[in-house]
Amino acid sequence: MEPDRIYMDNAATTRTAPEVVEAMLPYFTDRYAEASSQFSHTPGILAKEGLDQARETLANKLHAASDEIVFTSGGTESNNLALKGTFLAFRGKKKRIITSRIEHNSVLQSCQWLEKEGAQVDAIGVDSEGFLDLNRLKDSIATDTFLVSIQHGNQEVGSVQDIRAIASLCNEKGVLFHVDASLGFTHFDLLLDDIRIDLLTLSAHKIHGPKGVGALFVRKGTPLVKTSHGGYHEFDMRAGTENVSGIVGFGRAVELARPEQADTLRKLQKALMDGLVRRIEGVRINGPADLSRRLPNNVNVSFDFIEGESVVLHLDMKGISVITGSACFSRSLEPSHVMMALGFSHERAHGSIRYTVSRYNRLEEVERVVDASREVVLALRKISPLVKKE
Amino acid sequence: MEPDRIYMDNAATTRTAPEVVEAMLPYFTDRYAEASSQFSHTPGILAKEGLDQARETLANKLHAASDEIVFTSGGTESNNLALKGTFLAFRGKKKRIITSRIEHNSVLQSCQWLEKEGAQVDAIGVDSEGFLDLNRLKDSIATDTFLVSIQHGNQEVGSVQDIRAIASLCNEKGVLFHVDASLGFTHFDLLLDDIRIDLLTLSAHKIHGPKGVGALFVRKGTPLVKTSHGGYHEFDMRAGTENVSGIVGFGRAVELARPEQADTLRKLQKALMDGLVRRIEGVRINGPADLSRRLPNNVNVSFDFIEGESVVLHLDMKGISVITGSACFSRSLEPSHVMMALGFSHERAHGSIRYTVSRYNRLEEVERVVDASREVVLALRKISPLVKKE
Repeated sequence: MEPDRIYMDNAATTRTAPEVVEAMLPYFTDRYAEASSQFSHTPGILAKEGLDQARETLANKLHAASDEIVFTSGGTESNNLALKGTFLAFRGKKKRIITSRIEHNSVLQSCQWLEKEGAQVDAIGVDSEGFLDLNRLKDSIATDTFLVSIQHGNQEVGSVQDIRAIASLCNEKGVLFHVDASLGFTHFDLLLDDIRIDLLTLSAHKIHGPKGVGALFVRKGTPLVKTSHGGYHEFDMRAGTENVSGIVGFGRAVELARPEQADTLRKLQKALMDGLVRRIEGVRINGPADLSRRLPNNVNVSFDFIEGESVVLHLDMKGISVITGSACFSRSLEPSHVMMALGFSHERAHGSIRYTVSRYNRLEEVERVVDASREVVLALRKISPLVKKE
Repeated sequence: MEPDRIYMDNAATTRTAPEVVEAMLPYFTDRYAEASSQFSHTPGILAKEGLDQARETLANKLHAASDEIVFTSGGTESNNLALKGTFLAFRGKKKRIITSRIEHNSVLQSCQWLEKEGAQVDAIGVDSEGFLDLNRLKDSIATDTFLVSIQHGNQEVGSVQDIRAIASLCNEKGVLFHVDASLGFTHFDLLLDDIRIDLLTLSAHKIHGPKGVGALFVRKGTPLVKTSHGGYHEFDMRAGTENVSGIVGFGRAVELARPEQADTLRKLQKALMDGLVRRIEGVRINGPADLSRRLPNNVNVSFDFIEGESVVLHLDMKGISVITGSACFSRSLEPSHVMMALGFSHERAHGSIRYTVSRYNRLEEVERVVDASREVVLALRKISPLVKKE
């Protein structure tokens, strides 16, 4: 990357921390044996130790048991396993899943697939800030509902759902609760001895770990049928040679994540949001205004009268990486399903820009980003046919 | 690993080549953006370039097109996708799969799963050296057969099937042909413009690439329904953020694999096999006697009158890593299904030891391994009740 590049696309993926790479290195060229060879030879034992240690780090962080942590190839696989694995466990008995309209595609498209396989899916709506109506959720739970799948923090607008309340509700009604916490689980206390979550999706590369690694917490006794077949890895819930180096990196990333980092992120977030609103006219904040109910690294705004695509490309030319919820960057050629679920107009969705910071960003960078955004927005408005029409 | 450790468990997994790690490093801390962000910003383009280059390396190696290479999390996922994806594509039309009794568990257990879902599976047998009877295979193909799934080289005894002949047969009969080439595809010419294979499973960590990365070649036009849902990655055949660093490492591993390495491996293999047979009495070679029909890094023998477990553990104490096809190291508590399919007695299966070399092994190591094996075998026979009974 160019040395002065400002990367603010951390909800997509994050820089792998150098300490994480350091921790992984021995597992490539030295401790490289298969963890499943632990009963055959010493190198196998060394690999297994690395695997076990990472598993314990995750379990301790979440107040879970080690054998409730199933490592996968990432958040997408974890979400697929949670939804399809419980569907299969309840097949012939219960068939209803409740989710929200702003989930990650790996949840929504798994649901679509399961509908073809006989599931019934209620994707419930959210308010204009991206929050679920818990009464609506409660009313949706029927006798043949087996699963509620709701994300922790939203990937686009950062709304953080009231997981504790939903957990109580699910517990009361006797349905399983799956939470996709791919984004920012390290910034919040999701303590599983305190909150009754049955399945929890985690991703390494969103928290400065490597890509290609994730985990699914599966509470002991949760009915789940495995969906990948082969060896008896991961407590017989996921087949395939364990990616030991990646998993060790995931463990290290969790160790490196400390509560005070959320405060740092919130400072960057607040400075960025305030700067954009103060310095640029015609800015609308997308997602929660109350920052305590928002992922600490997420800023999402729409600039009136201009297209998100243009803003993104001009900011890129100025060395700043962000994304838009607009149409042309998605394969579906439709505006972000999240923006639509929030009830925004196509214009507002098209003009939306997501800035997501990480602990590698600095306050000086925020200033540069605000300045650059202002320049770009003003320049684009000068040539915008929408402004002229006003 | 101890500095003088001799690692001969390379069919399980291999050392990641230092050159591979070197190639991966920039993709952790510098070129770490998401490849799918290529339309949003320059860091995304850089990541996409790494991904594309690795894809091209694989495609060139196989004489395939770039868009026929689908990256996955490993050989197990590739096998699962090939079998389940074609099953789903033919669901309601054709239901029969032909495979062999010595396939990897990820094929056999996927087949078992598919049987529950309505597939009919013929797992055909092999001769005592691990070779398929092609006439038997031919006779098994019925009008409702959609897939033949046969491995290239066997994981335990190294038998290499006549893939070209099976491909012609499948082509003639109009059924899809899937080949699991997880082991040793770099040692043989599997040129896909020459041999009509429809689906080909590859694994990185078996060829000195990283764990957690694999690929499935999917010939253009092959009916395949995706089995993981989420984003539109990998030509919409596999959802999930691309593991760019891992994939770049896979590409580098393929680049580093050169035909002459097979000759080096064959020398080690021959020296080891000859040494064991010459220096130790009561040794039986498991798998092909004709080394040209055997994976170049595989040696598998049974020592009469003793248990493989004991040999493995004693060799480990002498700093040598190998495995056995015996029961107690497998989760199923049964002897290896491959050994049983070869028609071996339980005793022979229990006494089997697999030595698999790599380009990091040296001829001096082979001598040490033969010496150590001899010592261990003689010592164990002294206390074996089976020998005394003679």
